[in-house]
Amino acid sequence: MSHNTFGHLFRVTTWGESHGPAIGCVVDGCPPLIPLSKADIQPWLDQRKPGGSRFVTQRQEADQVRILSGVFDDGDGPVTTGTPISLLIDNTDQRSKDYGEIARAYRPGHADYAYQTKYGVRDHRGGGRSSARETAMRVAAGAVARKVLGEGVRIRAGVVQIGPHRLTPEAVDFDAVHDNPLYAATRDTAAWEAYLDEVRKAGSSIGAVVALEVTGLPVGWGAPIYGKLDAELAAALMSINAAKGVEIGAGFDAAELSGEANADEMRLGDDGKPVFLSNHAGGVLGGISTGQPLTARVAFKPTSSILTLRQTITRDGAETDLRTKGRHDPCVALRGVPVVEAMAACVLADAMLRHRAQVG
Amino acid sequence: MSHNTFGHLFRVTTWGESHGPAIGCVVDGCPPLIPLSKADIQPWLDQRKPGGSRFVTQRQEADQVRILSGVFDDGDGPVTTGTPISLLIDNTDQRSKDYGEIARAYRPGHADYAYQTKYGVRDHRGGGRSSARETAMRVAAGAVARKVLGEGVRIRAGVVQIGPHRLTPEAVDFDAVHDNPLYAATRDTAAWEAYLDEVRKAGSSIGAVVALEVTGLPVGWGAPIYGKLDAELAAALMSINAAKGVEIGAGFDAAELSGEANADEMRLGDDGKPVFLSNHAGGVLGGISTGQPLTARVAFKPTSSILTLRQTITRDGAETDLRTKGRHDPCVALRGVPVVEAMAACVLADAMLRHRAQVG
Amino acid sequence: MSHNTFGHLFRVTTWGESHGPAIGCVVDGCPPLIPLSKADIQPWLDQRKPGGSRFVTQRQEADQVRILSGVFDDGDGPVTTGTPISLLIDNTDQRSKDYGEIARAYRPGHADYAYQTKYGVRDHRGGGRSSARETAMRVAAGAVARKVLGEGVRIRAGVVQIGPHRLTPEAVDFDAVHDNPLYAATRDTAAWEAYLDEVRKAGSSIGAVVALEVTGLPVGWGAPIYGKLDAELAAALMSINAAKGVEIGAGFDAAELSGEANADEMRLGDDGKPVFLSNHAGGVLGGISTGQPLTARVAFKPTSSILTLRQTITRDGAETDLRTKGRHDPCVALRGVPVVEAMAACVLADAMLRHRAQVG
Amino acid sequence: MSHNTFGHLFRVTTWGESHGPAIGCVVDGCPPLIPLSKADIQPWLDQRKPGGSRFVTQRQEADQVRILSGVFDDGDGPVTTGTPISLLIDNTDQRSKDYGEIARAYRPGHADYAYQTKYGVRDHRGGGRSSARETAMRVAAGAVARKVLGEGVRIRAGVVQIGPHRLTPEAVDFDAVHDNPLYAATRDTAAWEAYLDEVRKAGSSIGAVVALEVTGLPVGWGAPIYGKLDAELAAALMSINAAKGVEIGAGFDAAELSGEANADEMRLGDDGKPVFLSNHAGGVLGGISTGQPLTARVAFKPTSSILTLRQTITRDGAETDLRTKGRHDPCVALRGVPVVEAMAACVLADAMLRHRAQVG
Repeated sequence: MSHNTFGHLFRVTTWGESHGPAIGCVVDGCPPLIPLSKADIQPWLDQRKPGGSRFVTQRQEADQVRILSGVFDDGDGPVTTGTPISLLIDNTDQRSKDYGEIARAYRPGHADYAYQTKYGVRDHRGGGRSSARETAMRVAAGAVARKVLGEGVRIRAGVVQIGPHRLTPEAVDFDAVHDNPLYAATRDTAAWEAYLDEVRKAGSSIGAVVALEVTGLPVGWGAPIYGKLDAELAAALMSINAAKGVEIGAGFDAAELSGEANADEMRLGDDGKPVFLSNHAGGVLGGISTGQPLTARVAFKPTSSILTLRQTITRDGAETDLRTKGRHDPCVALRGVPVVEAMAACVLADAMLRHRAQVG
Repeated sequence: MSHNTFGHLFRVTTWGESHGPAIGCVVDGCPPLIPLSKADIQPWLDQRKPGGSRFVTQRQEADQVRILSGVFDDGDGPVTTGTPISLLIDNTDQRSKDYGEIARAYRPGHADYAYQTKYGVRDHRGGGRSSARETAMRVAAGAVARKVLGEGVRIRAGVVQIGPHRLTPEAVDFDAVHDNPLYAATRDTAAWEAYLDEVRKAGSSIGAVVALEVTGLPVGWGAPIYGKLDAELAAALMSINAAKGVEIGAGFDAAELSGEANADEMRLGDDGKPVFLSNHAGGVLGGISTGQPLTARVAFKPTSSILTLRQTITRDGAETDLRTKGRHDPCVALRGVPVVEAMAACVLADAMLRHRAQVG
Repeated sequence: MSHNTFGHLFRVTTWGESHGPAIGCVVDGCPPLIPLSKADIQPWLDQRKPGGSRFVTQRQEADQVRILSGVFDDGDGPVTTGTPISLLIDNTDQRSKDYGEIARAYRPGHADYAYQTKYGVRDHRGGGRSSARETAMRVAAGAVARKVLGEGVRIRAGVVQIGPHRLTPEAVDFDAVHDNPLYAATRDTAAWEAYLDEVRKAGSSIGAVVALEVTGLPVGWGAPIYGKLDAELAAALMSINAAKGVEIGAGFDAAELSGEANADEMRLGDDGKPVFLSNHAGGVLGGISTGQPLTARVAFKPTSSILTLRQTITRDGAETDLRTKGRHDPCVALRGVPVVEAMAACVLADAMLRHRAQVG
Repeated sequence: MSHNTFGHLFRVTTWGESHGPAIGCVVDGCPPLIPLSKADIQPWLDQRKPGGSRFVTQRQEADQVRILSGVFDDGDGPVTTGTPISLLIDNTDQRSKDYGEIARAYRPGHADYAYQTKYGVRDHRGGGRSSARETAMRVAAGAVARKVLGEGVRIRAGVVQIGPHRLTPEAVDFDAVHDNPLYAATRDTAAWEAYLDEVRKAGSSIGAVVALEVTGLPVGWGAPIYGKLDAELAAALMSINAAKGVEIGAGFDAAELSGEANADEMRLGDDGKPVFLSNHAGGVLGGISTGQPLTARVAFKPTSSILTLRQTITRDGAETDLRTKGRHDPCVALRGVPVVEAMAACVLADAMLRHRAQVG
C-alpha cells in the first residue's frame, strides 16, 4: 500500500476531499473484456449513499458515478480494455457553512490535529481528505473488483454488534442484511433500532462490529510471507475510517482455545474432496486461502462528531469546548458495511491476479 | 507489501526455510552513518531464540547472525553505508528425521495443505517457509530499525493473556516482561506458569494475546489513506505466524463506547503543548501518529503442533490420524513478543523515512 | 513503474483515452504547503497543446486543466495539502469520424495490432490509450514536479536534430527553443522549417532527437543500484510515445572514447568546491547526481500516421493497404519537447524526496 | 524499481560489496515446480567470471554460487517452491591492499565522489557497492529468469563495436559470440583483438556497444503506459555499470527515417499468421511485444580505472593526481554481454508473469 493507492496488480488510487468539487478513483490492472457499465457500480454506491434512512447522515448526495476511461463498446456493450478505469462522483451538497468552527478548533476523535500538525495545513471542510466520503470510491472500485472475481465469489458483510447489542455467531444471518435499515445480520432488529434511535436523538454515537464472510474462494490465493491474504485484508479493513480492530476466523477468541479445539480437522467429502470439520482459521492458513469461507470481523469506533460539548484546543494553541454540529451518522459502522465488502473484493481481485501470475 | 518484502523505504526482504542451510534477510533503504554491528542485533535474537526455557521449543539453534554487507568501518567502528544490509543465520539443528510423517499428511492448523495445493510442492521439513523460524529475520531487521528510530522511541511488548488468564489494562506492566519466562507483562506469573506447565505436559497448546506499546513518537508519522500507520501496523502484525487478530487502541472495546466516552479530549499541558486526556485512539488519528503512546494488541492462536491425534488427510487423498511430534512451543505467542516489537520497529522506521520524505 | 503509475514517492498515475470524455492524472506524495493553482500548470500545457503552428496536429483542444483535489486555500492562496492532486482535462474535439477505418485495419508503426492481440479489444478512436494525447497529463504532472523542485532546478529541452539536419553539441542553444515553431535549440531554423514544410506537404513524417539539460541539481540524488537516477530517467524518457533511444551524457559516443578522454577530471574551484573539467558522464556517476548539469538525449521515430498507402492487415485476418488520414504531426518530437522536460521533472522530484527520506 | 530491487512480480534484490565477505541476491515471485539447481546457474556465471582471458580483469574469483532457499527435492530433483530463492557467492580474492589510495582520492569517472557526498561514507574497497562485481548476481538471477521463460525464448547478446571498430547490422552474427574472447558478434575479430591488446598494454581502456536480440517472444508482453516493455528494458540496461545509452530497434537512426521507411508493414504469412516486412520497431509497439525479435543496443563507456595519471581531488578537499592500479578490464563491455542478457531475461520473466496476471 502506498499513500493513496492500494493493491499490487489490481490497483486502486483514490483522490478527493469531502467538500471539493468531486471525488474519484483510478482502477488500474483490471483484466480486459469484462462487461462494465455504470449499472454494475451504481447499486453498490446506492447502498452506501448518505440520506437513506434516519440512522445515517442526512447529507444529500446523488452519488452518481461516471466512468471516464478504461471501457469501450465495440458493438456488444461496454467492456474493460485493460487500461485504467477512471471513476468520478461530483460533490453536490457540500454546505461548507456547517463546518466553519472546525477551521479553528480540533474535533476530538477526528484527524484534525494530526493532519494540521503533520502537513501544516488541512482542508477542514467536512474533514477534507479524512472524511468517510472517500469510502464511496472504495465502494465503486469494489464493484469493479466484484466483476473481476465473477459471481462464484460471494462477498457479504453485516452489522453483528451495536454497542451492548450483539449477535452470537450462530445467530448471524447475512441474508437479512438488506432487509433492515441497520444493515444488521439479523431480522430481529427492533431493540437495536430503538437503541440507536435513542443514541441518535441524544446527539450521541455508538461503536459497532461488522462481520464479513466470503464464499466460493478456491484454494491457493494469497502468498507468504508478507503478502498473506489475511495480512492484506487486515490492512485493507483497518484503513477504513473508524476501524479499530480486525479479526480473522476465531480472532481474539483463539487466545482461549487449546490446540486440540483450534485444529480444523480434515476429512474427505462424498465427492472425494477435502473438507474441514470446523473453521477457526477463517479460511486462511499460512496466508493462503483454504477453500473454506473467509471470515473476518471489524470493530468500528463511534462517530466522533457528536453534539455534546467536548474539551479541545484550537489551532492557535488555546483551550476551548466544542460540539460538532452538522449531519452525522449515529453509528458510522452502518455505512461501513458496503465498504468492508468493497475492500474485501479489491483485496481478493488482487490476490486472484497475483496467484494467476505466479502459478498460472 | 510484496510476497517476501515489506516496507516502502525501509524495506525488509526475508528468505529461507526452517530446515534449509540458512535463513536471512536484506534490509534496504537504511540511512547511512548509523553505527551497526552484530552487538546491536544479537541480543534481540537471543530473546527470541528457541531453547531458552521449558516453555519454548527445545530445538537448539545458536542463531548467531552475520552481517554480510551494508556496513563499513572507516576507522570509528562499523556504520551503515546506505547500501543493502544482508543478514544471515545458519541453521544448525535441523533434525529432519523428526518430520518424516508430515511429508505425506497435512497437519491440521498448519499451512501444509494450502502450500501443497497452491504450489504443487512444499518443503515439508519443519514447515519449510511457513515455519516460525522465519521470524528470526524479522527480529534481526527490527534491531536495525530500532537503530534508525533512535533511543527516543521505546518499543515494548508483553504477554497479557494466556488462555483463561488475562491482565486488566491497569495491571499491564511492561517493565516485568523480561523478568519472567513467559514474557508476561506482569510479575505475578505463578498461576500462569503452573497453567502453562500443565498444557505443556499434556502435549497440548494454548492461545494468547500480546500487547504492544510504543512511546516517544512524534506527531505526524503515517499517511492517509492507504498508508495509514495503523493499517500498516495491522498488516505487519497480522503477517506474524499464528496471529488471528489485531487491535489498535480501544480495539473491539470501541464497539461498546459512546462518542462521548471515546473522544480523547485535549487540553494544553503546563508546557503549553497539547495533551490528550485519554487514549482510546491508541496514538493514531486518521492514520497519523498523535504523539500519544501507540498501543496495539495481537491475538495468537495456539500452536498447531500437538501430541493429540487429530483427523486429517494425506497428500494422496486418504484419510488418516496424525499427532505432531517434534519440539514445539506450548504457547507460540511467547516467542511472538520480540517479533511483535520487531514488526512495529520496522513499520515505524519506514513511517519515519516516508514522513521525512514528504514533509522534510 | 507500474502499468499506469510512475514514481516512488512523487507518484503520477494517468488515465484516459484520446477520444473518451476526458483525460486526467493523480499526483500523489506531493509535499504540503507548495503554492499551486491552475496558473502554475496551464502554461506548460499550452506549450504542448495541438494546433499551435503548422508543424503540429490541427486538432483543436482547449486543454484547460482543472485541479479537483489536493489543494486548499486557507486565506493566502491555494497550497498543496499533501493529499493526492487530481488533474483533469476534458476532451472537446474528438471527431471520431476521422478514424473509422482503423477500427478494422492495423496502422503500421502504431500500437493497434499489439493492443488488439494482447487485450482482445482496443479503443481504436484516435489510438485510444496509446495516443500521444496521454502526454498532456505528463506535462501537467511535470508542472507540479517543477514546483516541488523549486526555481533552483532548471529543466530545459529542445530539438537538436530533425532528419538530416542536426546541431553540433557546441551549437545547442536552449535559450532559442521557445523562439521558433520547431522548439529547436537554435535560432538558425530556416532550412529546418523549409525541410519540415516539405515533409508536411508530402503527407509524410520524419524522426528527430530532443536534448535535455538540467542545471542546479545538488550532489547526491538518485540511488544505486536499481534506483539509479539515469536508469529511472531512461525509463521515463523511453516511455514517451515514439521514443526509440535514450542517451545520458556522452551516450553512444562513449563507445569511441578512451578511458583518458572519458574521465571527467576534478579540480577545486575558486570557492574551494569541487569542479569537473568535462561532463562526459552527463551529471551522473554510479546512478547519483554529481552536481554537474544532467544531460540526456532522446531519439523519436517519425509519426506513424502518414498519407502514403502502406501494406497492412485487418483485424479479421485479411491483407489491405492503408493510409492514415486525420490531423497529425509531421514530426511528433516537436511536441515531445515539453514532455521530455516534464518526465525529467517528475523523476527529479521523486529523487529529491527519496534522497531526503534516506539521507535527511 | 526500488533501490536494490527490480521487477514487479519476478523480483530481484541484490546485496553485497566488492570486497565484503560475499555477494548475493534474492529472487522472489518465481513460479513453482521449475527444475533448478546450481547447474542451471553456474554456466552463466562462468561466462561473466573474471580471469577468463587477457581482455578481462585478472582478479581470481571462483564465483561458485550456492542456492540457500526456495528449492526442494521431493524425489525427482530440486524444483522451485514458489518461495524466495536466495543465491550467494563468497568473495575469495579481495586483495584490499590494491585499493588503499582510493580511500582518500576520488577516482575520476567512478562513483567515489558521488557516494561519499551522498552518504557521508563509502566502502572504498574495490568500489564497494558500485563495483561491477554486483553484476554477478544479475547474471545469477538471469539464469533463474531463463528457466521461467523456457527454451522457446532465446536471448543473445554480443559486442558489435569496440572503439573505432564496428559491425554493420548485416554483419552481426550472434552465433559467433562464444567463439572469441571478445564476446563479439563476429568471427572476424583479429583486428579487434590486436586493437584491444594495444589498449590493454597501454593501461588504457575503451568504450563499446553491445547488441541484444531476443527471439521467440509471443505478442502481448509489456503494458502501457509506464510499464512499457521497452521502458522497463531501458531502465534495466541503463542500470548496468558503465551503460550510457540504450536503443530499441532502429534507435537513434530512427531520427533520420521517414514515416514511410519506418513503418513496419504487415502481410499474412503462408500459415495465415501476421508477418512484418521489417523491424524498425525492435519488436515493441506501444510498449507491447509484437512477436518480432526484440532488439536493443547498449553503449558502454570505457573502464574508468586506467594507469594514466588523472587530475582529481581528495576527500579532504585537496587537489591530487591519481592513477588507478589494480586488476581491471580494458573494455568493461566485454563482461557486460552476459549481464545484458541477464537483465533482458529478468525483465521478460517479469513481463510474462504480469501479462499472465492481467490477461490470463
